[in-house]
Amino acid sequence: MNWHNALTQILKIKYPLVQAPMLGVSTPEMVAAVSNEGGLGSLPVGLQSPEKTRELIIKTKTLTDKPFAVNLFAHDIPTIEPTQTQAIQEQLMRISEKYGVAYTPVDLTQIRHFSYQEQLDVLIEEKIPVVSFTFGVLDQPSIERLHAHGMILIGTATSVREAVYLENIGIDIITAQGIEAGGHRGTFLFDEPLPQIGLISLLPQVVDAVKRPVLAAGGITDPRAFKAAMILGAQGVQVGTAFIGSDESLAITPYKEQLRKSQDTDTVLTRAFSGRWARGIRNSFHDEIQQLSLEYPAYPILNTLTAPIRIASQKQGNTQLTTLWAGQSAAMATQKSSAEILRSLIIGVEQITT
Amino acid sequence: MNWHNALTQILKIKYPLVQAPMLGVSTPEMVAAVSNEGGLGSLPVGLQSPEKTRELIIKTKTLTDKPFAVNLFAHDIPTIEPTQTQAIQEQLMRISEKYGVAYTPVDLTQIRHFSYQEQLDVLIEEKIPVVSFTFGVLDQPSIERLHAHGMILIGTATSVREAVYLENIGIDIITAQGIEAGGHRGTFLFDEPLPQIGLISLLPQVVDAVKRPVLAAGGITDPRAFKAAMILGAQGVQVGTAFIGSDESLAITPYKEQLRKSQDTDTVLTRAFSGRWARGIRNSFHDEIQQLSLEYPAYPILNTLTAPIRIASQKQGNTQLTTLWAGQSAAMATQKSSAEILRSLIIGVEQITT
Repeated sequence: MNWHNALTQILKIKYPLVQAPMLGVSTPEMVAAVSNEGGLGSLPVGLQSPEKTRELIIKTKTLTDKPFAVNLFAHDIPTIEPTQTQAIQEQLMRISEKYGVAYTPVDLTQIRHFSYQEQLDVLIEEKIPVVSFTFGVLDQPSIERLHAHGMILIGTATSVREAVYLENIGIDIITAQGIEAGGHRGTFLFDEPLPQIGLISLLPQVVDAVKRPVLAAGGITDPRAFKAAMILGAQGVQVGTAFIGSDESLAITPYKEQLRKSQDTDTVLTRAFSGRWARGIRNSFHDEIQQLSLEYPAYPILNTLTAPIRIASQKQGNTQLTTLWAGQSAAMATQKSSAEILRSLIIGVEQITT
Repeated sequence: MNWHNALTQILKIKYPLVQAPMLGVSTPEMVAAVSNEGGLGSLPVGLQSPEKTRELIIKTKTLTDKPFAVNLFAHDIPTIEPTQTQAIQEQLMRISEKYGVAYTPVDLTQIRHFSYQEQLDVLIEEKIPVVSFTFGVLDQPSIERLHAHGMILIGTATSVREAVYLENIGIDIITAQGIEAGGHRGTFLFDEPLPQIGLISLLPQVVDAVKRPVLAAGGITDPRAFKAAMILGAQGVQVGTAFIGSDESLAITPYKEQLRKSQDTDTVLTRAFSGRWARGIRNSFHDEIQQLSLEYPAYPILNTLTAPIRIASQKQGNTQLTTLWAGQSAAMATQKSSAEILRSLIIGVEQITT
């Protein structure tokens, strides 16, 4: 099978497979393993300081000399309203007590939220070849600056309108994210109702609407879905959930176990953890927050508030008060090394006869 | 391309394409056109009297000597609570006045709701080769009776659990309905939350879980989606929205126009028209009913109550108070004859090189 196409050429990779940037799950080891195997690893650095960003990049570079992407969160930095956050803090205390997860609440006045603009110098200095972004779009000066340094930009669309928007502002590669995808939705032009378009509908419509290469994301956990995405017009795929169970993943063992035992109907779209819509296996934290009918504060305020409770829950091996991001094909994910997961997808696609 | 497989063999058809039964849209002419062209037409007879059922079957038989399916609604017949329906009637009057659609409210005490059991004699006498059903499942005596007459049964699943359930009760072919699909959801084992699984995730998981042939439904409006569904493990596809714009469709012209001009984000899941979840282009009726936070009565009570308002709205060429069922790929639908729509899908699939 000939894997060479416009996408592999632009990205200088052997196989058109991008490992999805999963903050809290993806590690430099995962990123390097995927890139070393001929795919494109993606290092998530959203919310990180410039120093931490550089540290993660350097760590990854010690593990691979192949290209990898760095993923930014392109949201604005919100102002914090103490009254609103105080009410949420009280609810979080109540929930943590109810489920026996002790934690120290974060003091929002002591937290510095970093903007992606503060990370750009590091990316340029480290000569990062590919920059992807989500949670909004990069501003025009940033796009021009990164392009001036020869960087390839990847943005995410959950609708045709967003794909066309990304193309018009000069983004080089567009990831079409189907509703099947685990983790956060990349929606940026719609408020309510959230676009919830299945990949088999979204992908051909996006491909027809833009000229740039399109990556397919959402539910691509086994070779059939990979091959189907290529038939639908994608030049490559972005794979997330399949790597959560990998050896190089930060996911705690009970999370990996729940993925493996999950059923197709087990995930929900939730705003409970970060205030932004994301897909994960339903758990008590989702149910508790859902009941409150919160007015969600701008990202990443709720994310910052829930961070210590999630970390405490993980330390206890408790999956009820932490994120269990998962796509709708999670049950097909396997527990192997990242390199083996990539290889089995590639070999699987090569074996499909049509 | 060799189209022959277990599904085409069981159904005695040339191409593994089933036209979805769309009550209020599908006609004997549409059904016959699809069957004459080598696919399987599906005649919707849900809610019809035995006499009307026979009339529709005989009409279809005058137009084709090829096999076609008859589609039943397998729900229980509800008892009617006058207090609940009166409040709904008042709201419907208010909405119809607001939008200038005059109609005569239905008198529920004068309506006889027919059960699918009352239609079985007609199907047997008319030697119908294939019977599909949705809105619940056929009871065991009915399954055995239809099987004893050599009929092939097709049921719809929106989750792996439902697919396995259908296989276990002896259903011969399982339609896996992705969240992309237009019209009513086939969900029957879940209440809230409704399974909302994208076809690219649902299909391979269903195929892996059952031994029976699987039909793919949802978003299959163009050849790429058809081919992708086959790659994902389907033995055939069920196509609905693509036929709404056909010459043989009952859809009024403004409805066909809205389909053609629609965008991927235009549809919503709504219970406003029938009380059951269904996907259609969002309009005023959906928004008005949505606001009421109704307790929906058992199917088909709300469907019966809204029927005269929908008919009056259609007669005025008004698309705001009637159903605009559409899948998420509606924008890719074309306005041709049903035969041409089928042919262009088949030829399109044959031209795809992988």
